Amino acid sequence: MTVQLLKQRILTEGVYLGNGILKVDSLINHQVQPDLMGIIGKEFGKAFGQYKIDRILTAEISGIMPAIMAGLELNVPVVYARKKRPITMSGHIYLETAASHTKGGEVHLMVSGEFLHSGESILIIDDFLASGETLLAMARIVKSAGAHLIGVGCIIEKRFEHGRKRLEEAGYADIPIVSLATIAHMSERGIVLADD
Amino acid sequence: MTVQLLKQRILTEGVYLGNGILKVDSLINHQVQPDLMGIIGKEFGKAFGQYKIDRILTAEISGIMPAIMAGLELNVPVVYARKKRPITMSGHIYLETAASHTKGGEVHLMVSGEFLHSGESILIIDDFLASGETLLAMARIVKSAGAHLIGVGCIIEKRFEHGRKRLEEAGYADIPIVSLATIAHMSERGIVLADD
Repeated sequence: MTVQLLKQRILTEGVYLGNGILKVDSLINHQVQPDLMGIIGKEFGKAFGQYKIDRILTAEISGIMPAIMAGLELNVPVVYARKKRPITMSGHIYLETAASHTKGGEVHLMVSGEFLHSGESILIIDDFLASGETLLAMARIVKSAGAHLIGVGCIIEKRFEHGRKRLEEAGYADIPIVSLATIAHMSERGIVLADD
Repeated sequence: MTVQLLKQRILTEGVYLGNGILKVDSLINHQVQPDLMGIIGKEFGKAFGQYKIDRILTAEISGIMPAIMAGLELNVPVVYARKKRPITMSGHIYLETAASHTKGGEVHLMVSGEFLHSGESILIIDDFLASGETLLAMARIVKSAGAHLIGVGCIIEKRFEHGRKRLEEAGYADIPIVSLATIAHMSERGIVLADD
Protein backbone atom coordinates (compact mmCIF):
# COMPACT_ATOMS: atom_id res chain seq x y z
CA MET A 1 0.00 0.00 0.00
CA THR A 2 1.40 3.33 -0.95
CA VAL A 3 0.29 6.87 -1.36
CA GLN A 4 -0.69 5.88 -4.93
CA LEU A 5 -3.67 4.00 -3.47
CA LEU A 6 -4.77 7.14 -1.63
CA LYS A 7 -4.52 9.13 -4.86
CA GLN A 8 -6.46 6.48 -6.76
CA ARG A 9 -9.22 6.50 -4.15
CA ILE A 10 -9.46 10.29 -4.27
CA LEU A 11 -9.86 10.12 -8.04
CA THR A 12 -12.49 7.35 -7.97
CA GLU A 13 -14.45 8.30 -4.84
CA GLY A 14 -14.00 12.07 -4.75
CA VAL A 15 -16.96 14.04 -6.07
CA TYR A 16 -16.69 17.61 -7.30
CA LEU A 17 -19.71 19.51 -5.98
CA GLY A 18 -19.03 22.82 -7.69
CA ASN A 19 -17.88 26.07 -6.08
CA GLY A 20 -14.45 24.58 -5.33
CA ILE A 21 -15.84 21.90 -3.03
CA LEU A 22 -14.54 18.32 -3.15
CA LYS A 23 -16.59 15.65 -1.40
CA VAL A 24 -14.40 12.90 0.04
CA ASP A 25 -16.88 11.76 2.67
CA SER A 26 -16.24 8.07 1.99
CA LEU A 27 -12.53 8.46 2.81
CA ILE A 28 -11.94 11.37 5.16
CA ASN A 29 -14.85 13.58 6.19
CA HIS A 30 -17.60 11.22 7.32
CA GLN A 31 -16.25 7.70 6.90
CA VAL A 32 -12.61 6.71 7.32
CA GLN A 33 -10.99 3.50 6.09
CA PRO A 34 -8.33 1.57 8.01
CA ASP A 35 -6.09 0.86 4.99
CA LEU A 36 -5.96 4.53 4.04
CA MET A 37 -5.44 5.54 7.67
CA GLY A 38 -2.35 3.32 7.69
CA ILE A 39 -1.00 4.92 4.51
CA ILE A 40 -1.61 8.42 5.86
CA GLY A 41 0.23 7.65 9.11
CA LYS A 42 3.21 6.08 7.34
CA GLU A 43 3.53 8.95 4.85
CA PHE A 44 3.53 11.57 7.60
CA GLY A 45 6.01 9.39 9.48
CA LYS A 46 8.34 9.41 6.45
CA ALA A 47 7.91 13.15 5.91
CA PHE A 48 8.48 14.29 9.49
CA GLY A 49 10.31 11.40 11.21
CA GLN A 50 13.66 13.22 11.14
CA TYR A 51 12.40 16.23 13.13
CA LYS A 52 12.19 16.68 16.88
CA ILE A 53 8.46 17.10 17.54
CA ASP A 54 6.92 17.70 20.95
CA ARG A 55 3.30 17.82 19.90
CA ILE A 56 0.99 17.63 16.91
CA LEU A 57 -1.68 20.30 16.62
CA THR A 58 -4.82 19.84 14.53
CA ALA A 59 -8.34 21.24 14.39
CA GLU A 60 -11.55 19.35 14.99
CA ILE A 61 -13.25 17.62 13.26
CA SER A 62 -11.71 16.13 10.13
CA GLY A 63 -8.15 16.91 11.16
CA ILE A 64 -8.37 14.47 14.05
CA MET A 65 -8.01 11.27 12.01
CA PRO A 66 -4.84 12.22 10.08
CA ALA A 67 -3.34 13.84 13.20
CA ILE A 68 -3.90 10.68 15.24
CA MET A 69 -2.34 8.54 12.52
CA ALA A 70 0.68 10.86 12.48
CA GLY A 71 0.80 10.87 16.29
CA LEU A 72 0.86 7.07 16.41
CA GLU A 73 3.61 6.88 13.80
CA LEU A 74 5.73 9.68 15.31
CA ASN A 75 4.88 8.71 18.92
CA VAL A 76 3.91 12.18 20.10
CA PRO A 77 0.75 13.60 21.75
CA VAL A 78 -1.93 15.15 19.56
CA VAL A 79 -3.87 18.27 20.57
CA TYR A 80 -7.03 19.11 18.65
CA ALA A 81 -8.16 22.72 18.67
CA ARG A 82 -11.81 22.98 19.72
CA LYS A 83 -14.31 25.06 17.76
CA LYS A 84 -16.70 25.44 20.67
CA ARG A 85 -15.36 25.88 24.18
CA PRO A 86 -16.23 22.70 26.10
CA ILE A 87 -17.32 22.99 29.73
CA THR A 88 -14.01 21.44 30.77
CA MET A 89 -11.89 24.16 29.13
CA SER A 90 -10.95 27.00 31.44
CA GLY A 91 -7.90 29.03 32.41
CA HIS A 92 -5.70 30.49 29.70
CA ILE A 93 -7.01 29.77 26.20
CA TYR A 94 -5.39 30.55 22.85
CA LEU A 95 -8.22 31.63 20.55
CA GLU A 96 -7.91 32.43 16.86
CA THR A 97 -10.51 32.83 14.12
CA ALA A 98 -10.50 31.54 10.55
CA ALA A 99 -12.87 32.28 7.68
CA SER A 100 -14.47 29.05 6.52
CA HIS A 101 -15.27 28.53 2.86
CA THR A 102 -17.06 25.19 3.28
CA LYS A 103 -18.85 26.09 6.50
CA GLY A 104 -19.62 29.72 5.77
CA GLY A 105 -18.74 32.50 8.18
CA GLU A 106 -15.97 32.35 10.71
CA VAL A 107 -14.85 29.54 12.96
CA HIS A 108 -13.13 29.82 16.33
CA LEU A 109 -10.16 27.63 17.14
CA MET A 110 -9.34 27.23 20.82
CA VAL A 111 -6.39 25.53 22.48
CA SER A 112 -5.91 25.42 26.22
CA GLY A 113 -2.64 26.82 27.53
CA GLU A 114 -2.31 23.53 29.42
CA PHE A 115 -1.38 21.66 26.25
CA LEU A 116 0.86 24.04 24.33
CA HIS A 117 4.00 25.47 25.89
CA SER A 118 6.69 27.99 25.11
CA GLY A 119 9.71 26.50 23.37
CA GLU A 120 7.95 23.38 22.09
CA SER A 121 8.34 22.11 18.51
CA ILE A 122 4.92 21.71 16.90
CA LEU A 123 3.80 19.86 13.77
CA ILE A 124 0.44 20.97 12.35
CA ILE A 125 -1.64 18.29 10.60
CA ASP A 126 -5.01 18.76 8.87
CA ASP A 127 -7.14 17.08 6.25
CA PHE A 128 -7.05 19.87 3.63
CA LEU A 129 -4.64 22.60 2.59
CA ALA A 130 -6.99 24.87 0.66
CA SER A 131 -7.05 28.63 1.31
CA GLY A 132 -4.77 28.07 4.29
CA GLU A 133 -7.12 29.94 6.65
CA THR A 134 -7.36 27.18 9.27
CA LEU A 135 -3.67 26.33 9.05
CA LEU A 136 -2.71 29.99 9.43
CA ALA A 137 -4.98 30.29 12.49
CA MET A 138 -3.27 27.25 14.02
CA ALA A 139 0.14 28.72 13.15
CA ARG A 140 -0.84 31.92 14.99
CA ILE A 141 -1.80 29.83 18.04
CA VAL A 142 1.62 28.13 17.97
CA LYS A 143 3.31 31.54 17.74
CA SER A 144 1.18 33.03 20.54
CA ALA A 145 2.26 30.17 22.80
CA GLY A 146 5.92 30.91 22.04
CA ALA A 147 6.28 27.50 20.41
CA HIS A 148 7.95 26.74 17.05
CA LEU A 149 6.17 25.44 13.99
CA ILE A 150 8.44 22.82 12.42
CA GLY A 151 6.17 21.61 9.61
CA VAL A 152 2.70 21.34 8.14
CA GLY A 153 1.17 18.13 6.79
CA CYS A 154 -2.14 17.68 4.98
CA ILE A 155 -3.81 14.83 3.17
CA ILE A 156 -5.14 16.83 0.21
CA GLU A 157 -3.93 20.15 -1.17
CA LYS A 158 -6.14 22.20 -3.46
CA ARG A 159 -3.34 23.95 -5.27
CA PHE A 160 -5.68 26.43 -6.98
CA GLU A 161 -6.70 27.95 -3.63
CA HIS A 162 -3.10 29.09 -2.96
CA GLY A 163 -2.89 28.19 0.73
CA ARG A 164 0.73 27.11 0.34
CA LYS A 165 1.64 30.53 -1.03
CA ARG A 166 -0.13 32.24 1.88
CA LEU A 167 1.75 30.07 4.39
CA GLU A 168 5.06 30.89 2.69
CA GLU A 169 4.25 34.59 2.67
CA ALA A 170 3.30 34.44 6.34
CA GLY A 171 6.87 33.41 7.20
CA TYR A 172 6.75 29.65 6.76
CA ALA A 173 8.71 29.36 3.51
CA ASP A 174 11.53 27.49 5.26
CA ILE A 175 9.57 24.67 6.88
CA PRO A 176 8.31 21.54 5.09
CA ILE A 177 4.72 21.87 3.88
CA VAL A 178 3.73 18.34 2.87
CA SER A 179 0.58 17.24 1.02
CA LEU A 180 -0.01 13.58 0.28
CA ALA A 181 -2.12 14.34 -2.80
CA THR A 182 -2.30 17.63 -4.70
CA ILE A 183 -5.26 18.60 -6.84
CA ALA A 184 -4.15 20.71 -9.79
CA HIS A 185 -7.67 21.53 -10.87
CA MET A 186 -11.15 20.12 -10.73
CA SER A 187 -14.36 20.72 -12.60
CA GLU A 188 -17.54 18.96 -13.61
CA ARG A 189 -15.35 16.92 -15.96
CA GLY A 190 -13.30 15.49 -13.13
CA ILE A 191 -10.44 15.84 -10.68
CA VAL A 192 -6.90 16.23 -11.96
CA LEU A 193 -4.03 15.50 -9.60
CA ALA A 194 -0.69 17.28 -9.93
CA ASP A 195 2.35 15.22 -10.85
CA ASP A 196 4.64 14.33 -7.96
CA MET B 1 1.04 -1.55 28.63
CA THR B 2 -2.34 -2.62 29.79
CA VAL B 3 -5.68 -1.15 30.63
CA GLN B 4 -4.26 -0.64 34.14
CA LEU B 5 -2.16 2.23 32.80
CA LEU B 6 -5.28 3.84 31.35
CA LYS B 7 -7.01 3.54 34.73
CA GLN B 8 -4.00 4.95 36.53
CA ARG B 9 -3.87 7.92 34.17
CA ILE B 10 -7.59 8.60 34.67
CA LEU B 11 -7.06 8.62 38.44
CA THR B 12 -4.00 10.88 38.33
CA GLU B 13 -4.96 13.24 35.48
CA GLY B 14 -8.76 13.24 35.72
CA VAL B 15 -10.21 16.27 37.47
CA TYR B 16 -13.67 16.30 39.01
CA LEU B 17 -15.29 19.63 38.13
CA GLY B 18 -18.53 19.16 40.08
CA ASN B 19 -22.00 18.55 38.68
CA GLY B 20 -21.02 15.06 37.51
CA ILE B 21 -18.38 16.35 35.11
CA LEU B 22 -15.00 14.65 34.76
CA LYS B 23 -12.25 16.53 32.96
CA VAL B 24 -9.92 14.19 31.07
CA ASP B 25 -8.72 16.77 28.58
CA SER B 26 -5.09 15.64 28.85
CA LEU B 27 -6.00 12.10 27.76
CA ILE B 28 -9.16 12.08 25.65
CA ASN B 29 -11.08 15.31 25.08
CA HIS B 30 -8.48 17.86 23.96
CA GLN B 31 -5.14 16.08 23.93
CA VAL B 32 -4.65 12.41 23.13
CA GLN B 33 -1.56 10.32 23.91
CA PRO B 34 -0.14 7.65 21.58
CA ASP B 35 0.54 5.07 24.32
CA LEU B 36 -3.02 5.28 25.61
CA MET B 37 -4.42 5.23 22.05
CA GLY B 38 -2.60 1.92 21.54
CA ILE B 39 -4.06 0.45 24.74
CA ILE B 40 -7.58 1.59 23.79
CA GLY B 41 -7.33 0.00 20.34
CA LYS B 42 -5.98 -3.30 21.69
CA GLU B 43 -8.64 -3.53 24.41
CA PHE B 44 -11.47 -2.97 21.92
CA GLY B 45 -9.80 -5.50 19.64
CA LYS B 46 -9.83 -8.06 22.45
CA ALA B 47 -13.42 -7.28 23.38
CA PHE B 48 -14.92 -7.38 19.88
CA GLY B 49 -12.43 -9.35 17.76
CA GLN B 50 -14.65 -12.46 17.69
CA TYR B 51 -17.61 -10.68 16.11
CA LYS B 52 -18.36 -10.04 12.45
CA ILE B 53 -18.37 -6.24 12.17
CA ASP B 54 -19.07 -4.32 8.98
CA ARG B 55 -18.66 -0.83 10.34
CA ILE B 56 -17.94 1.13 13.49
CA LEU B 57 -20.22 4.06 14.26
CA THR B 58 -19.21 6.89 16.56
CA ALA B 59 -20.15 10.53 17.13
CA GLU B 60 -17.93 13.53 16.65
CA ILE B 61 -15.87 14.85 18.34
CA SER B 62 -14.33 12.87 21.16
CA GLY B 63 -15.61 9.53 19.92
CA ILE B 64 -13.42 9.75 16.82
CA MET B 65 -10.12 8.84 18.51
CA PRO B 66 -11.31 5.63 20.26
CA ALA B 67 -13.35 4.63 17.17
CA ILE B 68 -10.32 5.01 14.90
CA MET B 69 -8.17 2.96 17.26
CA ALA B 70 -10.83 0.24 17.26
CA GLY B 71 -11.17 0.48 13.47
CA LEU B 72 -7.44 0.00 12.98
CA GLU B 73 -7.37 -2.99 15.33
CA LEU B 74 -10.53 -4.62 13.90
CA ASN B 75 -9.76 -3.55 10.31
CA VAL B 76 -13.19 -2.06 9.54
CA PRO B 77 -14.33 1.38 8.33
CA VAL B 78 -15.36 4.00 10.87
CA VAL B 79 -18.29 6.37 10.34
CA TYR B 80 -18.58 9.40 12.57
CA ALA B 81 -22.01 10.94 13.02
CA ARG B 82 -21.90 14.66 12.31
CA LYS B 83 -23.47 17.19 14.67
CA LYS B 84 -23.79 19.89 12.01
CA ARG B 85 -24.68 18.94 8.47
CA PRO B 86 -21.62 19.62 6.32
CA ILE B 87 -22.08 21.10 2.86
CA THR B 88 -21.04 17.74 1.38
CA MET B 89 -23.85 15.79 3.10
CA SER B 90 -26.97 15.39 0.98
CA GLY B 91 -29.44 12.71 -0.05
CA HIS B 92 -30.94 10.46 2.61
CA ILE B 93 -29.75 11.33 6.12
CA TYR B 94 -30.44 9.50 9.38
CA LEU B 95 -30.96 12.19 12.00
CA GLU B 96 -31.49 11.63 15.72
CA THR B 97 -31.33 13.97 18.69
CA ALA B 98 -29.75 13.47 22.10
CA ALA B 99 -29.95 15.62 25.22
CA SER B 100 -26.45 16.71 26.21
CA HIS B 101 -25.53 17.08 29.87
CA THR B 102 -22.06 18.49 29.31
CA LYS B 103 -22.97 20.69 26.34
CA GLY B 104 -26.43 21.80 27.46
CA GLY B 105 -29.49 21.50 25.25
CA GLU B 106 -29.89 18.98 22.50
CA VAL B 107 -27.44 17.76 19.90
CA HIS B 108 -28.21 16.42 16.45
CA LEU B 109 -26.48 13.32 15.16
CA MET B 110 -26.50 12.81 11.40
CA VAL B 111 -25.31 9.86 9.35
CA SER B 112 -25.57 9.74 5.58
CA GLY B 113 -27.47 6.79 4.16
CA GLU B 114 -24.42 6.27 1.92
CA PHE B 115 -22.42 4.84 4.80
CA LEU B 116 -24.91 2.70 6.76
CA HIS B 117 -26.83 -0.08 5.07
CA SER B 118 -29.58 -2.52 5.85
CA GLY B 119 -28.34 -5.85 7.19
CA GLU B 120 -24.92 -4.60 8.31
CA SER B 121 -23.40 -5.46 11.70
CA ILE B 122 -22.44 -2.29 13.55
CA LEU B 123 -20.22 -1.70 16.57
CA ILE B 124 -20.78 1.61 18.37
CA ILE B 125 -17.73 3.20 20.03
CA ASP B 126 -17.64 6.41 22.09
CA ASP B 127 -15.50 8.10 24.71
CA PHE B 128 -18.04 8.07 27.56
CA LEU B 129 -20.93 5.89 28.65
CA ALA B 130 -22.73 8.29 30.99
CA SER B 131 -26.49 8.84 30.72
CA GLY B 132 -26.46 6.81 27.50
CA GLU B 133 -28.25 9.57 25.54
CA THR B 134 -25.70 9.76 22.70
CA LEU B 135 -25.29 5.98 22.51
CA LEU B 136 -29.08 5.49 22.40
CA ALA B 137 -29.35 8.05 19.60
CA MET B 138 -26.68 6.17 17.64
CA ALA B 139 -28.47 2.87 18.35
CA ARG B 140 -31.68 4.40 16.91
CA ILE B 141 -29.76 5.40 13.78
CA VAL B 142 -28.49 1.82 13.40
CA LYS B 143 -32.05 0.51 13.80
CA SER B 144 -33.49 3.06 11.35
CA ALA B 145 -31.00 1.88 8.75
CA GLY B 146 -32.11 -1.72 9.24
CA ALA B 147 -28.65 -2.62 10.52
CA HIS B 148 -27.82 -4.68 13.62
CA LEU B 149 -26.05 -3.37 16.69
CA ILE B 150 -23.61 -6.06 17.80
CA GLY B 151 -21.89 -4.25 20.66
CA VAL B 152 -21.06 -0.98 22.40
CA GLY B 153 -17.60 0.04 23.56
CA CYS B 154 -16.59 3.09 25.60
CA ILE B 155 -13.42 4.25 27.26
CA ILE B 156 -14.97 5.50 30.50
CA GLU B 157 -18.28 4.56 32.09
CA LYS B 158 -19.84 6.76 34.74
CA ARG B 159 -21.77 4.00 36.48
CA PHE B 160 -23.78 6.43 38.61
CA GLU B 161 -25.43 7.93 35.50
CA HIS B 162 -27.07 4.58 34.66
CA GLY B 163 -26.53 4.63 30.88
CA ARG B 164 -25.86 0.89 30.86
CA LYS B 165 -29.24 0.24 32.47
CA ARG B 166 -30.94 2.46 29.90
CA LEU B 167 -29.26 0.60 27.03
CA GLU B 168 -30.32 -2.73 28.53
CA GLU B 169 -33.90 -1.52 28.97
CA ALA B 170 -33.94 -0.25 25.39
CA GLY B 171 -33.44 -3.80 24.13
CA TYR B 172 -29.65 -4.13 24.20
CA ALA B 173 -29.33 -6.43 27.23
CA ASP B 174 -27.98 -9.27 25.09
CA ILE B 175 -25.10 -7.50 23.37
CA PRO B 176 -21.70 -6.79 24.95
CA ILE B 177 -21.47 -3.32 26.49
CA VAL B 178 -17.78 -2.85 27.25
CA SER B 179 -16.16 -0.04 29.23
CA LEU B 180 -12.41 0.06 29.68
CA ALA B 181 -12.63 1.95 32.99
CA THR B 182 -15.70 2.32 35.20
CA ILE B 183 -16.10 5.15 37.68
CA ALA B 184 -18.07 4.00 40.71
CA HIS B 185 -18.36 7.48 42.16
CA MET B 186 -16.56 10.78 42.17
CA SER B 187 -16.61 13.84 44.36
CA GLU B 188 -14.38 16.69 45.48
CA ARG B 189 -12.46 14.04 47.43
CA GLY B 190 -11.52 12.14 44.31
CA ILE B 191 -12.39 9.58 41.66
CA VAL B 192 -13.13 5.99 42.66
CA LEU B 193 -12.95 3.31 39.99
CA ALA B 194 -15.10 0.18 40.23
CA ASP B 195 -13.35 -3.15 40.70
CA ASP B 196 -12.96 -5.22 37.55
